[in-house]
Amino acid sequence: MGMNLTQKIIAAHLVEGQMVPGQEIAIKIDQTLTQDATGTMAYLQFEAMGVPRVKTELSVSYVDHNTLQTGFENADDHLFLQTIAAKHGIYFSRPGNGICHQVHLERFGKPGKTLLGSDSHTPTGGGIGMLAIGAGGLDVAVAMAGKPFYLTMPKVVKVELLGRLSPWVSAKDVILEVLRRLSVKGGVGRILEYTGPGVATLTVPERATITNMGAELGATTSIFPSDEITRAFLAAQGREEDWVPLSADPDAVYDEELTIDLSALEPLIACPHSPDKVVPVREIAGLPVDQVAIGSCTNSSYVDLMRVAAILRGKKIHPRTSLVISPGSRQVLTMLAQNGALADLLSAGVRLLECTCGPCIGMGQAPPSAGVSVRTFNRNFEGRSGTKDAQVYLASPEVAAAAALTGQLTDPRELGAYPEVTLPEKFLLDDSMIIPPAAAPETVEVRRGPNIKPLPKGQPLPAEYRGEVLLKVGDNITTDHIMPAGSKILPLRSNIPAISQYVFHQVDPEFPARALAKGGGVVVGGQNYGQGSSREHAALAPMYLGVRAVIAQSFARIHRANLINFGILPLTFARAEDYEAIEQGDIIRLPELVERIGAGAEEINLIVENKNLTIPLLVDLTPRQRAILLAGGLLNYV
Amino acid sequence: MGMNLTQKIIAAHLVEGQMVPGQEIAIKIDQTLTQDATGTMAYLQFEAMGVPRVKTELSVSYVDHNTLQTGFENADDHLFLQTIAAKHGIYFSRPGNGICHQVHLERFGKPGKTLLGSDSHTPTGGGIGMLAIGAGGLDVAVAMAGKPFYLTMPKVVKVELLGRLSPWVSAKDVILEVLRRLSVKGGVGRILEYTGPGVATLTVPERATITNMGAELGATTSIFPSDEITRAFLAAQGREEDWVPLSADPDAVYDEELTIDLSALEPLIACPHSPDKVVPVREIAGLPVDQVAIGSCTNSSYVDLMRVAAILRGKKIHPRTSLVISPGSRQVLTMLAQNGALADLLSAGVRLLECTCGPCIGMGQAPPSAGVSVRTFNRNFEGRSGTKDAQVYLASPEVAAAAALTGQLTDPRELGAYPEVTLPEKFLLDDSMIIPPAAAPETVEVRRGPNIKPLPKGQPLPAEYRGEVLLKVGDNITTDHIMPAGSKILPLRSNIPAISQYVFHQVDPEFPARALAKGGGVVVGGQNYGQGSSREHAALAPMYLGVRAVIAQSFARIHRANLINFGILPLTFARAEDYEAIEQGDIIRLPELVERIGAGAEEINLIVENKNLTIPLLVDLTPRQRAILLAGGLLNYV
Repeated sequence: MGMNLTQKIIAAHLVEGQMVPGQEIAIKIDQTLTQDATGTMAYLQFEAMGVPRVKTELSVSYVDHNTLQTGFENADDHLFLQTIAAKHGIYFSRPGNGICHQVHLERFGKPGKTLLGSDSHTPTGGGIGMLAIGAGGLDVAVAMAGKPFYLTMPKVVKVELLGRLSPWVSAKDVILEVLRRLSVKGGVGRILEYTGPGVATLTVPERATITNMGAELGATTSIFPSDEITRAFLAAQGREEDWVPLSADPDAVYDEELTIDLSALEPLIACPHSPDKVVPVREIAGLPVDQVAIGSCTNSSYVDLMRVAAILRGKKIHPRTSLVISPGSRQVLTMLAQNGALADLLSAGVRLLECTCGPCIGMGQAPPSAGVSVRTFNRNFEGRSGTKDAQVYLASPEVAAAAALTGQLTDPRELGAYPEVTLPEKFLLDDSMIIPPAAAPETVEVRRGPNIKPLPKGQPLPAEYRGEVLLKVGDNITTDHIMPAGSKILPLRSNIPAISQYVFHQVDPEFPARALAKGGGVVVGGQNYGQGSSREHAALAPMYLGVRAVIAQSFARIHRANLINFGILPLTFARAEDYEAIEQGDIIRLPELVERIGAGAEEINLIVENKNLTIPLLVDLTPRQRAILLAGGLLNYV
Repeated sequence: MGMNLTQKIIAAHLVEGQMVPGQEIAIKIDQTLTQDATGTMAYLQFEAMGVPRVKTELSVSYVDHNTLQTGFENADDHLFLQTIAAKHGIYFSRPGNGICHQVHLERFGKPGKTLLGSDSHTPTGGGIGMLAIGAGGLDVAVAMAGKPFYLTMPKVVKVELLGRLSPWVSAKDVILEVLRRLSVKGGVGRILEYTGPGVATLTVPERATITNMGAELGATTSIFPSDEITRAFLAAQGREEDWVPLSADPDAVYDEELTIDLSALEPLIACPHSPDKVVPVREIAGLPVDQVAIGSCTNSSYVDLMRVAAILRGKKIHPRTSLVISPGSRQVLTMLAQNGALADLLSAGVRLLECTCGPCIGMGQAPPSAGVSVRTFNRNFEGRSGTKDAQVYLASPEVAAAAALTGQLTDPRELGAYPEVTLPEKFLLDDSMIIPPAAAPETVEVRRGPNIKPLPKGQPLPAEYRGEVLLKVGDNITTDHIMPAGSKILPLRSNIPAISQYVFHQVDPEFPARALAKGGGVVVGGQNYGQGSSREHAALAPMYLGVRAVIAQSFARIHRANLINFGILPLTFARAEDYEAIEQGDIIRLPELVERIGAGAEEINLIVENKNLTIPLLVDLTPRQRAILLAGGLLNYV
C-alpha cells in the first residue's frame, strides 16, 4: 500500500510510536523558528536546559511582532534575542527583515524537512513541501535541545485540486473555500494534504497562502508536494540544491477526502468575527469600507504585492478609505523599490508600513470605531484589530485592492482585465539582515533588559485538588481571548507577572485579581477552547495566576499541548451536557488526582461541592503527558 | 531708516500696536496649519465660535502625529479632522502624506505671507521667507475665524552668514552652532533673521532645517530672505507664481547681531538631554550607538534622504545598530522610490517607517534601556523617546548615517568623498492625498468618535484666590514634562478628562490625583517654564485639574500665551530669590485678584499663609490679556 506525502515525511522522522491516527508519536525536528513575541520565553527555556548550542540542522530567531517599540521593552527584547541567538548557534533575522514565515519560505525552507515554529502559522512552510508545525515556545526549545516533538498522529485529509483559478480569483479564495466547508474546527486532529492536477497551477507563494491559513481550520498542518514549481521557486531563491521531488504514492490512502474545483471558485470574503464565516464578495458588495490592510504572513509575497501595484497603477484610492501595506519581507520590499512597483503603490495613496506582522497582530492601524476593515490577513477575531467594535473582513489582495479603489466592497471582476504577474526568475538575494551565530560564542554577552523576567516555575499535581470555578466561557474561545495581543500587551511577553494581569482581559477584566485572591482555580470552556495562535502565554500566564485545570467540551491542539507543558490539566466532559451544570463560583474537587492520572485512568470525577454533583471527566493523555503533568510541566520533566 | 525683513512683513500685516520690541501687536494671519495632536481641539474651538468657513487665505489640517493607531482613537480623530475640514473650508492632508511642515513648505508656503500653526516647529516656513509662528490651537482657531494674532513685538536678531559649508557639514550644524552659542533660552522674545552672503549658498530645505530648529532657541520665529534660490525651489514645486523677492533693506537696523562663518563649522552634535548641549562630533567619537533615527520635520527632505542614500549605497549598516528612517513627505518617499535611492537605503539595512513625526514625538522606535540613539530630530528631552534612561543625541543626517555604518559615533569626514546631491529641477507633483474642502459643505456630516470629548470651560478669575502649591519644579521644564506625548498619551489629545490624568506624569505621577483632591492650586517653576512644543494641552489639562496660576522665574513664549488663553495666571517673581522661599504644600493667597488684574497693576502680592510671608509677583500682561484672564480664557473672551 502506498504512502501519502505526510506519512513519508513522518516515517522518515519517526522516533517513537506508530503512524496510527490518534496515537502519540514523536518526530525528529530538523528546523525551528521563533518570532519575538514567543521567542523570548522559548530562549529562556532553552537556556534553562543548559544546552550550549542548538542541535537542530537550523534554528532561526525572527523579529516581526513587537516592532512598534512604544517603550523600552521591545528594543530590549530584540537585543536579548540577537545576543542569545549569537551565543547558542541560532540565526537572527533583524527587525525590518520581514515576517518569519515569509522569510523562512524564501531563505530557509526545504522540502521534506520538519519545521517546528513557535507561531501558529508555521504551516506556511507546507507550501514548499515541509512538514511545518506550530507549537508552544517550550516545545520549540525542547526541539532546539535535540529532543523529539510529540504529537498525536493526525488523520490525513486528501484535498484534491482540479482545474485552474479564474482571473481575479487567487490562493486566498481556495483556503477561504476550505474554511467555508470545514469551519474553524474542521481541521482539528488532521493534516490537509493537497494533491491533484490543480496543484501544478499554483506557485509556491500561492501554496504557502493556503497552508498558512490552514491554521484557521485547527489543522495540525497542511502540505503541498514538492515538484517542478517548487524547484523553480528554490532556483529563483538561489537554492536549487535544496530541492528534492516529493509527492504521495499513486496508490496512497487517506483518512478523508475533499475535492475543490479551482475553476469554480469566485472571490470570497470572511465576515466578522470568524475566518469561516465565508460568503462570495458579490453577496455583500457595496458595503462602505473605512480601511484596507494588505500584508501579513498570509498575503504579502512578491506576487501578491506586484498584483496590487498593477491594479492600483495610475489610479488613486478612494478618499473615504485608508490603505496600508506591510510587505512580507525586505526581499519583497526591496524588489518593489527597485522595479518601480513601490512608486506605483505610493502614487496611488498607499500608507507603507514596515515589513512586519503589524496590524494583523493588532500592532497598529486599529480601524475607527465600528469601522469596516478589509484585510488580507488570516484572523478576524473580535477586538484583535485593536478596535473592539471594528468589523474586520478577510479577503484576497485582489478584493482588498478593489475596495481601496472604490471605497466599498467590490467584486474585483468588475475592474476589467486581470493584470498578469509572474514570479521572477531570480529573487533579490541579500541576507545581510540575517546575522549568523557567533564564531566565538563564549565572547557573547547576553543582554537582558529590565522587563525580561525569570521563568515562573510549574507546580507538581496535588494529590487532590479543591478550588473554585474562576470563569466559565463559551465555544471557540481563542488564545486572543485568553491572553490578548495588541500594542499594549504584546510588549510584556517577556514578563509573566506583568502580562498575567491581562489574562481574559476582554472577557472579564477582573479575572486576574480574582484568580490571585482565590489562590487559583479552574476555568470551564465549551467547544474548541484555545483556537488561534500558538502563544504559550495563554497557558503560562494562567499558570502563574494559579489555574490548575481547564475543563472544556473540546480543545484546540496547540493550546492543549501548551496547557500540559505548563502543568495545567486539560479535561473534557464525558457528557457534553454537563457543561450546563457548572457555573462560575462553584466549588469543585478533583479527588485522587495524582493516583488516577499516574495510573493511566481515562476518566476522573469532578465533584461540585456546593451542588452535590459528580460529573465524569475524560482524561485523554498519553503516558508521557501524564508524567509531564505530575512533574508540573515539561520544563520540570526534561 | 531701512527696515529689516521681519519689520516689512509685520508692517504689511499690522492690525494693532506699534513695532516696538516688548509691546503687544496684532497681525493679520494669511495661512494656518494644524497637526492632528493639536488639531482636534483647535477645530472644536473653531466650531464653538460658530464661523461657517475659515476666513484665512488658506488653512490646512495635517495628520502626522497620531498615526500608529494602537487603538480606535487615532482613526476616529482622523475621520473627525477629515470631515470637519471638508465642512469648514480647510484642506486636509491625509495620514501618510507627510509631516505638516515639510508638506507645507513643498506645497503651500509663500514668501511674505504670515503662517500661524498649532505646532512649535511652524517656523520651518521661515525657510521660504514666511513669517511663520507656532501657537496654541486656540490661537490658530481664532485666526481661522479671521481675527488677528496677538504677540509681543520681538527683538530682531541679525544672523550674518559668511562663507560656505564644508563637505560633510550641513544645515543642522548651523542651527546646532546657534544653539551652542545662544542656549535654549537665547531666542526668547526674538526673531532670528538670517542675512549675509552665506544665505545664497543654502537651499530652501536647508534654510528650513535652520528655521525649524530655531524653535529650540525659544525664538518667536526665524526667517530667511526670498531670493533666486527661493524662486528655483518654488519653480521646482510648480509654484513659481507664488514667488516674490523679499529681503531686508541695505540699511536695515537690528536689535542684536550674530555672525556665523559657515566655512568654520564642523560636524556638531547635541548631547543628552538638551538641544543646546552641543559639542563637535570628534570630541565624543567612538561612543557605541544602538540606534540611529533619520527623519522629523527638521531633517527629512529630499536632499537629506538622497544624501543618506548616497552615503549608504553599496554598504551595510553595523549589526549593532538599528537604523530607522521616516521620510518627511510622500513627495520625498515617492521620488526616492522612483529614482532607486529607496532601494539603496533598504539594501543597506534601513527600517523604513511611515512619513510621519514617528519616533521624534515618541511615537514608536523607543531605544533600548540606557541605549544611545543618534537622531536627526530637534529635541532630546529626557524620556521623550519613550525610554526614560535612553541617551538621545541630535545631529545631521551625515553624522547619523556615519554612526549607522560604523556602529559608533563617527566624524563623517572620515568617510571619504562627500556625495554631491542637488535639488531636482522638478519635484514630483501629486496632491491626491490632500483633500480640498467640500463643494457642498452643508452635506458633510462631521464624524465624532467616542474619545472626542467636549471642550472643558474656563472659569473667570476669582476676586481672591486661596489654594495650595501643588508642585514646585526647577528650570527649563518642558511641555513634555507638563503634558507628556508618546504612544500611550498622545492618542488622548481629544479627551481632556482622560489626558489630564497624565499631567506631570514623569515628574510626579500623583499630581493629577492631588490636584483634583485639593480642588486645584498653583504650580511654581524656575526659568524658561514651558519650553518645547506648542501643545495647549499643557495649559488646558492643568486648567481641567484646577490649576489657577503658575508662578515662575520666567516663561517660554507659546506656553505663556496658552496659559493666558485658558485662564491660568502666569506670574513671575519680582525677586528671583523668592523662588527658594516657597515649597510644595504651602498655602498661598492672591488677594484682590480681579481688582488688581483689572486695574492694570504690574505687581501683586503672594501671601504664603503658613510661613507668614508676602512675596511680590510681577504681572506682565497687556490690557487684552488681562481681559482674557478675567473672562476665564480666550474662548470665553471672544
